[in-house]
Amino acid sequence: MTVPAHRIAFGEHLRELRQVHGWPSQEAFAHHVGLDRTYISGLERSRRNPTLDVIVRLARGLDVHPSELLATIPKCEQQDSRT
Amino acid sequence: MTVPAHRIAFGEHLRELRQVHGWPSQEAFAHHVGLDRTYISGLERSRRNPTLDVIVRLARGLDVHPSELLATIPKCEQQDSRT
Repeated sequence: MTVPAHRIAFGEHLRELRQVHGWPSQEAFAHHVGLDRTYISGLERSRRNPTLDVIVRLARGLDVHPSELLATIPKCEQQDSRT
Repeated sequence: MTVPAHRIAFGEHLRELRQVHGWPSQEAFAHHVGLDRTYISGLERSRRNPTLDVIVRLARGLDVHPSELLATIPKCEQQDSRT
């Protein structure tokens, strides 16, 4: 499976923000934002493609602006073959 | 239907960016980014909930960073009953 670079950037940044903002546990954060732990895990491993509604929900749970969650995405197209 | 404020902000900002970046026609822009004109229209009228993949595709079509598309979303939760 080819994973687009923007999904990897999003997932890695979500994990970092979650930890920095005081949620070391995926499970506790998932409960806080009303999503399933496996879904949070899937996002952080670039497996899921969140909707705008989910991005906004994650951002509010982290107390960051929604645009912050997209901040590390490369502007230009890149691909990554990590699976 | 209650439309969340972030969808309205996203849709209005997409329309503005599309026009400012030289795409007065939804149809031409839709063709440029490989999406359907009715889908672009639905996004601009807050009816659609785009995925991260779509947000990135729209941003690249506009030559802006993906986070720019979310820039006008209110950080705090608000609701709007526009239908």
